[in-house]
Amino acid sequence: MEKNIAVIWGDCSSPEIVKQTIRVLDKVAEKYGHTFHYTDAAMGGEAIDKYGDPLPQHELDKCLAADSVLLGAVGGPKWEGLPGEQRPEKGLLRLRAGMGLYSNNRPAKIWPQLAPASPLKPEIVAQGIDFIIVRELIGGVYFGKHETHTLENGEKQAIDSMPYSEHEIERIGRIGFETAQKRRKKLCCVDKANVLDTSRLWRSVMHRLQAEYPDVEYSEMFVDNCAMQIVKNPAQFDVIVTENMFGDILSDEASMITGSIGMIPSSSLGDGTRGLYEPIHGSAPDIAGRDIVNPTACILSAAMMLRYSFGMAEEADAIENAVNKVLDKGLRTADNMSEGCTCLGCTAMGDAILAEI
Amino acid sequence: MEKNIAVIWGDCSSPEIVKQTIRVLDKVAEKYGHTFHYTDAAMGGEAIDKYGDPLPQHELDKCLAADSVLLGAVGGPKWEGLPGEQRPEKGLLRLRAGMGLYSNNRPAKIWPQLAPASPLKPEIVAQGIDFIIVRELIGGVYFGKHETHTLENGEKQAIDSMPYSEHEIERIGRIGFETAQKRRKKLCCVDKANVLDTSRLWRSVMHRLQAEYPDVEYSEMFVDNCAMQIVKNPAQFDVIVTENMFGDILSDEASMITGSIGMIPSSSLGDGTRGLYEPIHGSAPDIAGRDIVNPTACILSAAMMLRYSFGMAEEADAIENAVNKVLDKGLRTADNMSEGCTCLGCTAMGDAILAEI
Ligand SMILES: CC(C)[C@H](C(=O)O)[C@@H](O)C(=O)O
Ligand SMILES: CC(C)[C@H](C(=O)O)[C@@H](O)C(=O)O
Repeated sequence: MEKNIAVIWGDCSSPEIVKQTIRVLDKVAEKYGHTFHYTDAAMGGEAIDKYGDPLPQHELDKCLAADSVLLGAVGGPKWEGLPGEQRPEKGLLRLRAGMGLYSNNRPAKIWPQLAPASPLKPEIVAQGIDFIIVRELIGGVYFGKHETHTLENGEKQAIDSMPYSEHEIERIGRIGFETAQKRRKKLCCVDKANVLDTSRLWRSVMHRLQAEYPDVEYSEMFVDNCAMQIVKNPAQFDVIVTENMFGDILSDEASMITGSIGMIPSSSLGDGTRGLYEPIHGSAPDIAGRDIVNPTACILSAAMMLRYSFGMAEEADAIENAVNKVLDKGLRTADNMSEGCTCLGCTAMGDAILAEI
Repeated sequence: MEKNIAVIWGDCSSPEIVKQTIRVLDKVAEKYGHTFHYTDAAMGGEAIDKYGDPLPQHELDKCLAADSVLLGAVGGPKWEGLPGEQRPEKGLLRLRAGMGLYSNNRPAKIWPQLAPASPLKPEIVAQGIDFIIVRELIGGVYFGKHETHTLENGEKQAIDSMPYSEHEIERIGRIGFETAQKRRKKLCCVDKANVLDTSRLWRSVMHRLQAEYPDVEYSEMFVDNCAMQIVKNPAQFDVIVTENMFGDILSDEASMITGSIGMIPSSSLGDGTRGLYEPIHGSAPDIAGRDIVNPTACILSAAMMLRYSFGMAEEADAIENAVNKVLDKGLRTADNMSEGCTCLGCTAMGDAILAEI
């Protein structure tokens, strides 16, 4: 197969991980007889520096023209003082919206080799941590109206609004149910239905969908309770579906309990097969340029791209198995180091994974 | 001193913990020569059953007439099917707003005797968990406009709005700084300033206040990152100040890492000294009527009332020291049991704490 991949190299230490990821993709292409064409697209800090805009239309167009998009991570101290509209994050939000990527999949899975790095007690980890947060990505308070005005008494007031309409809930709800069907068949909808109208609308749509997925065990949980349960008893979860902001908070918490945030990929999809694939970690400005950042989450994001956008299951397996073997050999990057393991830099970790493919 | 306390007995297992708390308050009154007058006020499920309204004005008036309010916990399966406005939670929200309680203080502190119950690794717990979340309680999306309407295409849309004005931020911001001044002098403002206008307004107000509290080390963190940091490195926090919804989620997460949610009290205060004191746990419907619920969080809430509303520091110390001694003796309720300890019921735990005062 021949595929066009738009590559957003990202900021700070991000180009280092993207570089290793492309080496891995090339190796897979060679081994399985595919051709991957890469088109660089600028987004985030890089785009601000080049074009004064975190995502100019011509760069978004490159992403829309590709079969899928690979992203490192954007942002850094250099761009932090800028006003809201010109910040790197805004580029990411506009990319998600511009590509129609309403479904963000964030797996929280413990690699057994890295279990000791979890901040949770071994007894809890031993029960298993393997769930997915399906986060709605282009609705809610992220994309509602934001306004700041001056009240009659002279003080400022800001209002962010959090809108959700039925079709927005339905399409992500279906992804939740379908994801559960492919796994342990348990779906938990997380919301704050005791306070929010949007949550109550979510529940009513979910209840309607539930009838169509009788094989899935469906439950509901308040977001505050979920924040507790993720720490107390993560083994209870299979698939969580939730709105944008709650998904942002809970998926970060969930990634942390795996103890290896440098290992967690994510996919963002819309209606077609074109997706955006990125590690869930940030651009790690503090270690940029030192060739010590962990490229694994980005490499695993590429594996997700092969699996979900290109239908290349075997190729995706090859990458994931390679990562597994590397961990088995006790090879680690600095963020995951533990006694008795060997510490590799970013390039060396890329080499090690390549060698197993 | 003579004080009037409005008592909301609450639902399900709540009256059991309130009963023990009143015994403790009476013992303190006797020992230190005070008189506490109690007035029962109905809120939540009890009020729905009696008056068809989770907080009728006459019950709110009783709370407003008191020197402070003691609350167990409200809600339960019996009232879950009711529409939003008639649910027990709505009574709680109206009580908070009606009493002007904008500042909710939720301590996350490990009792050394209960450290093994934390879901976190001993290495992390050993670094210490002792911080307070100062949560804004009567603004934001909890009290913004909630609306559900039908769009032109026939589908429903819900919109929740999240408003904050400068004075609302300033008053809670000051509580944050002042709380930090009385502790380890570190304040972290948690928000989502890369997305929300309200968060950006929070930051601008906090920056203005910062100049007035030069002795406090001030920092800022995004809420998603904070959800990670609470699990990864809770020792870094002293005081966190945040808006209502983020505070709801983070304080529940924070309470869970202490491993003993049945031990955590909270206070809610406004401009005067009249406050609302309640455990952070719920009404535990599953164990209602069995005399096994842990009364300690409610008893410690009463201690906070003595300290913060009545200025009775010595009396508050007496209660907290009593709880400490009871734990030292290995006395526990079922929720906290561990090997080698003695398991007591709710009344027996009340007796044990009383005996140490
Ligand atoms: C950078 C930020 C706007 C973004 C988000 O909140 O969605 C990030 O935290 C994420 O989760 O991808
Ligand atoms: C019951 C609910 C409305 C309430 C809240 O969200 O404030 C509760 O979770 C709390 O934190 O006191």
